[in-house]
Amino acid sequence: MSLDTNTRNNLLFQLGEILPEEYLLTSEEAIKPYECDGLSAYQKLPVAVVLPETIEQVQRITKICSQLKVPIVARGAGTGLSGGALPHEGGIILGLSRFNKIEKIDTDNLTATVQPGVRNLAITEAARPFGLYYAPDPSSQIACSIGGNVAENAGGVHCLKYGLTVHNVQQVTIVTVDGELVTLGSQTLDTPGYDLLALITGSEGMLGIIVEIVVKLLPKPHAVKVLMASFKKVEDAGNAVANIIAEGVIPAGLEMMDKPAIHAAEAFAKANYPLDAEAILLCELDGSEQQLAEQIETVSETLRNANADDIVIADSADEQARLWAGRKSAFPAVGRISPDYYCMDGTIPRKQIAYVLKRISELSEECGLRVANVFHAGDGNLHPLILYDANKEGELEKTEKFGADILTLCVEVGGTITGEHGVGHEKIDQMCVQFSPEELTQFFAVKNAFDPDALLNPGKAVPTLHRCAELGGMHVHNGQLPHPEIPRF
Amino acid sequence: MSLDTNTRNNLLFQLGEILPEEYLLTSEEAIKPYECDGLSAYQKLPVAVVLPETIEQVQRITKICSQLKVPIVARGAGTGLSGGALPHEGGIILGLSRFNKIEKIDTDNLTATVQPGVRNLAITEAARPFGLYYAPDPSSQIACSIGGNVAENAGGVHCLKYGLTVHNVQQVTIVTVDGELVTLGSQTLDTPGYDLLALITGSEGMLGIIVEIVVKLLPKPHAVKVLMASFKKVEDAGNAVANIIAEGVIPAGLEMMDKPAIHAAEAFAKANYPLDAEAILLCELDGSEQQLAEQIETVSETLRNANADDIVIADSADEQARLWAGRKSAFPAVGRISPDYYCMDGTIPRKQIAYVLKRISELSEECGLRVANVFHAGDGNLHPLILYDANKEGELEKTEKFGADILTLCVEVGGTITGEHGVGHEKIDQMCVQFSPEELTQFFAVKNAFDPDALLNPGKAVPTLHRCAELGGMHVHNGQLPHPEIPRF
Repeated sequence: MSLDTNTRNNLLFQLGEILPEEYLLTSEEAIKPYECDGLSAYQKLPVAVVLPETIEQVQRITKICSQLKVPIVARGAGTGLSGGALPHEGGIILGLSRFNKIEKIDTDNLTATVQPGVRNLAITEAARPFGLYYAPDPSSQIACSIGGNVAENAGGVHCLKYGLTVHNVQQVTIVTVDGELVTLGSQTLDTPGYDLLALITGSEGMLGIIVEIVVKLLPKPHAVKVLMASFKKVEDAGNAVANIIAEGVIPAGLEMMDKPAIHAAEAFAKANYPLDAEAILLCELDGSEQQLAEQIETVSETLRNANADDIVIADSADEQARLWAGRKSAFPAVGRISPDYYCMDGTIPRKQIAYVLKRISELSEECGLRVANVFHAGDGNLHPLILYDANKEGELEKTEKFGADILTLCVEVGGTITGEHGVGHEKIDQMCVQFSPEELTQFFAVKNAFDPDALLNPGKAVPTLHRCAELGGMHVHNGQLPHPEIPRF
Repeated sequence: MSLDTNTRNNLLFQLGEILPEEYLLTSEEAIKPYECDGLSAYQKLPVAVVLPETIEQVQRITKICSQLKVPIVARGAGTGLSGGALPHEGGIILGLSRFNKIEKIDTDNLTATVQPGVRNLAITEAARPFGLYYAPDPSSQIACSIGGNVAENAGGVHCLKYGLTVHNVQQVTIVTVDGELVTLGSQTLDTPGYDLLALITGSEGMLGIIVEIVVKLLPKPHAVKVLMASFKKVEDAGNAVANIIAEGVIPAGLEMMDKPAIHAAEAFAKANYPLDAEAILLCELDGSEQQLAEQIETVSETLRNANADDIVIADSADEQARLWAGRKSAFPAVGRISPDYYCMDGTIPRKQIAYVLKRISELSEECGLRVANVFHAGDGNLHPLILYDANKEGELEKTEKFGADILTLCVEVGGTITGEHGVGHEKIDQMCVQFSPEELTQFFAVKNAFDPDALLNPGKAVPTLHRCAELGGMHVHNGQLPHPEIPRF
């Protein structure tokens, strides 16, 4: 898979002709920081790292790589959690960190035009003076780049009400693998032709290199309140989530934590969480004062009807910050109670939350690994944290197996193997569970339409049929495999 | 382009083997009703019309057509306005009217599983007992089918707040051109892999045959109010639209009519519209009583600041119905004041409304044809109605030219050539204005990934580069052609 010497030399010579020295990294010392992304369990060194500054440079780089058949892995801030930016040992990393300009805040059309290397939070900061913000807020928003957000169709706490990245992007300009500049979407509501904007969103760097993005901005809500409800039964908390949505209230955020997560977070962040609860829900509501009053009434009643033990309403900014602090520090908090943890990411229909948590707890007992659950409940987006010790022999493998079982469980109940982290390198085998050979064949055909030589991020996101066959008929089609114990609501 | 006798006979023989007699229409009398869709200016007779009842039949039909290289034009209720279901003279019409079952209303996950021939309004009717409804509401909703809605990414009055069809569809099952069954999307928030669900939505029957759809349902809003504001200047009305959205209020509907449309509608529907106004806005708000009170205050203030002459708030259902009656009857009302009219459909950034209406009025004077404007202002989705007389020689051609000029104008100000009617047969030449050769090439590649022999709805939606070249370098890239008189907000 690595490059032969001739091609390597030719590649570096040609790249050197178009890029200043500090834009082309080849020494092991210089490229070492690019060996992995946020999923650091997997590491590889690329042939070179290029850090272009202009669209023209990106076009030239892709043309050179196309001509020499050299793989290209695009990289934003490298915060991804599924190994989507893991280098290819025979290819280059195309880093977009120099594309860090906010080109325009358009207050009339409520959009921002930005380069892909701009940090997610920087867009909201730039829009703040105009009373506007960019809604999708992955927890890495202080560091992650908007280009990476588009490539992974990133989510976040507020995506329940305001949508995923795909719902908040209006136009994307890409450089194709053969160096052409193509604009997808438009500045208006709808665009004729096939919806290539949605297609590129979440395509994990496999269809083109994103070089400019127009995102939608929203007016900031007037006010915010946060409720915390505690439950004696996990099942009741799960049902409360579905019932709130069914009442027609879409909270700005609706998060759930189970007992192990509550205890870890409380020990770490002193958030005043109830230690006797089996589960808590955090519900953020936004809008005008009047809207808030009414939503709080509806949500409180729904929570009580779902057997909530206690409901706390945080009015002040301080109280709200304290309640969120526990949730936001849940990952590092879990890090304190276990040498290592593995964060999974799957999505299930809301009504299946109670059942899936029960099954995860059974799987946890079967394999002898603890698990803490912290997740975007409103979206049905689970983040089970599997606690393990990498220094114990065989425990990483046991953890990976447990993780894979959780993802298969998600698919079995009609869910999917990813909520917001993407497939990347991590979940490529689970794609064989999610999709049928016919569906994967259609993916290959689309890939081929953009990148016939498979040079863009090869080996990620979409497995070959051969790979799926090797894993052996794992396919479970949208939960249609008969599985008697799954409740069919 | 028509079939040779051998292929035709072979086709009819094979179709006859798998379909009962009344499912396979071949006599001119039987197929005549399928010669056009809602754009009746264009008519063609297909070789045959098939009306399958099961997915298996659709699979067999596509396999037969694939093998014989016979074009397939899928058709729902035939209400489309861009000629997307115009038959191919060498192909078959695959009518989906027998796919008319609502398979499931899922009140837990707020979805409905329906066959493609189900009428749009029938979904809302079926969901009503559960306090739910399906949001996108094209004006043809009493007749149009949900399969056609997905194929055209249909809009409607309420799409400003609740999104287009693409935002309200969760899963679509298609039969590919070679007869494979493929499920796109899932029952959860996000799905791994390329976003083929968004890709199929709005693809105008060119990528696959839709055989099942899972749509999202919403809880019915508690209450509704309608405001009407009148303006002495069209420009002020246009600005008011942008300002309402910028205030953070997203009305359920925000419609605009200009003077000719007001006069025609008032004469027809007696809606109590102000005849001295240059423009009126109709604004529908929904939510709880408290939310409504607050939104009405914000909207009223914004309207006054934008120089609204008069604001009428319709509280009662009767008053509201009367205000909407004028808007809803605007098309037939215009039909009374002109022998013929041609309904255009383009989208522009909201801030460009005033400028574009001024230019349309100038173009109207230049070519001597009257125009009435009735449109989804909140979306920037224009529907200029060009008034003409088809019996006057050359007037249809002049009308088509005027219509094309309006669409080019939409693209010049950063808009698009369609809002909700699709490209179909009607606007295929304007696609050369909208997209560059590189962008069209990417469309071809995607088409090729689904339908390498171009059998699905050939000649629609995406023009060949050859055709664009014949029309002569018309390309204006997202308003980037220098055009000094266009205000750049």
